[in-house]
Amino acid sequence: MRETGLPFDDIRRLLPLMPEADRVAAEAVARRDAELTKPAGSLGRLEDIAVWLAAWQSKTPPTCERPLVAIFAGNHGVAAQGVSAYPSSVTAAMVANFRNGGAAINQICETFGAGLRVFELALELPTKDITQDAAMDEAACAATIAFGMEAIAAGCDVLCVGEMGIANTTPAAAIYVALFGGEASHWVGRGAGVDDAGLKRKIAAVEAAVALHKAHLKDPLEVLRRLGGREIAAMVGAILAARLARIPVILDGYVATAAAAILHALDPAALDHCVAGHRSPEGAHGEALRRIGKPPLLDLNMRLGEGSGAALALGVVKAAVACHAGMATFAQAGVATKRG
Amino acid sequence: MRETGLPFDDIRRLLPLMPEADRVAAEAVARRDAELTKPAGSLGRLEDIAVWLAAWQSKTPPTCERPLVAIFAGNHGVAAQGVSAYPSSVTAAMVANFRNGGAAINQICETFGAGLRVFELALELPTKDITQDAAMDEAACAATIAFGMEAIAAGCDVLCVGEMGIANTTPAAAIYVALFGGEASHWVGRGAGVDDAGLKRKIAAVEAAVALHKAHLKDPLEVLRRLGGREIAAMVGAILAARLARIPVILDGYVATAAAAILHALDPAALDHCVAGHRSPEGAHGEALRRIGKPPLLDLNMRLGEGSGAALALGVVKAAVACHAGMATFAQAGVATKRG
Repeated sequence: MRETGLPFDDIRRLLPLMPEADRVAAEAVARRDAELTKPAGSLGRLEDIAVWLAAWQSKTPPTCERPLVAIFAGNHGVAAQGVSAYPSSVTAAMVANFRNGGAAINQICETFGAGLRVFELALELPTKDITQDAAMDEAACAATIAFGMEAIAAGCDVLCVGEMGIANTTPAAAIYVALFGGEASHWVGRGAGVDDAGLKRKIAAVEAAVALHKAHLKDPLEVLRRLGGREIAAMVGAILAARLARIPVILDGYVATAAAAILHALDPAALDHCVAGHRSPEGAHGEALRRIGKPPLLDLNMRLGEGSGAALALGVVKAAVACHAGMATFAQAGVATKRG
Repeated sequence: MRETGLPFDDIRRLLPLMPEADRVAAEAVARRDAELTKPAGSLGRLEDIAVWLAAWQSKTPPTCERPLVAIFAGNHGVAAQGVSAYPSSVTAAMVANFRNGGAAINQICETFGAGLRVFELALELPTKDITQDAAMDEAACAATIAFGMEAIAAGCDVLCVGEMGIANTTPAAAIYVALFGGEASHWVGRGAGVDDAGLKRKIAAVEAAVALHKAHLKDPLEVLRRLGGREIAAMVGAILAARLARIPVILDGYVATAAAAILHALDPAALDHCVAGHRSPEGAHGEALRRIGKPPLLDLNMRLGEGSGAALALGVVKAAVACHAGMATFAQAGVATKRG
């Protein structure tokens, strides 16, 4: 199956295979929407969500009955630069917390009836420090993208993509600088709550990493392998696999959006099956979302990661589906339409 | 029980009886929150919601197990001025739709396990046209406020307050002009989708109503009875009754906020037990929310009314409660806290 010796070519070969939105399903939903007992447009983004789900699921009415939250967890050599408020051991401890049901994401999944899958990415082997080296070699990066594609193996009708990884807002910020330009200080935030001195170290680390790799940042996949991390690479795979399987995706916050931005840089249409679950106050997340053209559904000052903002948006998505599928039409309810 | 002959005095007498927030419960929630397995503050407004619920429910953990959506429906003499895209008969038809389970609010309630109660307010007897007369006399207005207080009679732990009433964004806009000043054109929106000519008639109607009653608009309850409507008066009662019973309230959109604004004008602390479920694109709803100090939880371009924005916010509130009650502490999960 491999036609060349370069692992990234296997990834690139998938991009032209991405399906497009199903306009017939989208138009059917829009037509039914116009007949439902409400003024046209009055459900705002809930109406858009129903159309978007149908366009990617290719079914009417669309569903959100088997939503899945996939969390990818990785560790980062750049943590050695003192960029995080927490030690790297917290990544594995939080993975255990996910498995034991004690984290925020467990409670949010239970609230909305979502499944949860946690993918550990060699936590005992952090990626290399991006201020000194590339995070990964090409083979490892491509293999991690491929591993991320397993997210949808068990089946789901909506996929929420999130992550956990101490220090991972540093590679995410480096990716934003590489893809979008601007100063490191513009893109860097406090992550899990680093102090002023740590914030300075974090900005310096992003500057050093981008400077080190600057001759090789034209190719988005090179940006990913040099400046990224395993969970970011895996999220690239998960988002891409969902597209190939026509599964709508809800993106989580600052780090998940960096993965999405890699795909967007490869092909601006690669995120057409995605919505942004929320806007995080971290760094310039709002600007990153504008760059990839994804206005967030929620804006609740959440900056936890672990898929929490995407999973919270499931409530909105489920309500959108319920309204579209369950509402009576004007004719059924005997309600007068607009006088004209 | 009545000490004077003026019906509004019965209402005014309730204001000093409003309980304050339970600081002990709020502090207990904040203390537990600091021990949960997440960086401090990283759940953003979900953390604030847990504290707020506990402060008003006086219990830890707070709950959102029996949420109730109360919809008040009324008709309006000012509809004769051609201010709405729909005829007044639609109010009763939509009430029937609520009872038959066919409206958007039914689907949203089902999504989040909320109860729904619909209160009809003499739909066959619209209030008087506010451009010609006061909407109600004092006795009718006070009785309607008292009727609205029945919203909580069946019991609930969170109350969502919403409405239905063709033409009712016109009295709501008139209330905003009376309470906050400014031009009618600033506060008026298209409601259920009135056309340009209708929008002009609506602005003219608000201007005429405010001009007619301008000598009597210092007292917020006079604003309510002269410019308001039955469902707005009933929502004043519902919000006030919830406060007296320590039930947290989620406000719906443009019209429900007008009812809240009446209470806020009577006593700025009267809405301490309320959050705004969402911001509507209708008129200057965002500014009205700023005036009453309530940043919205959601901003999804919804402008349906019938409690839909408040009910949708139940998803956020339920997730907030679930996170607070269900998450493991750092000690329970064996997760390292911040390095120091």
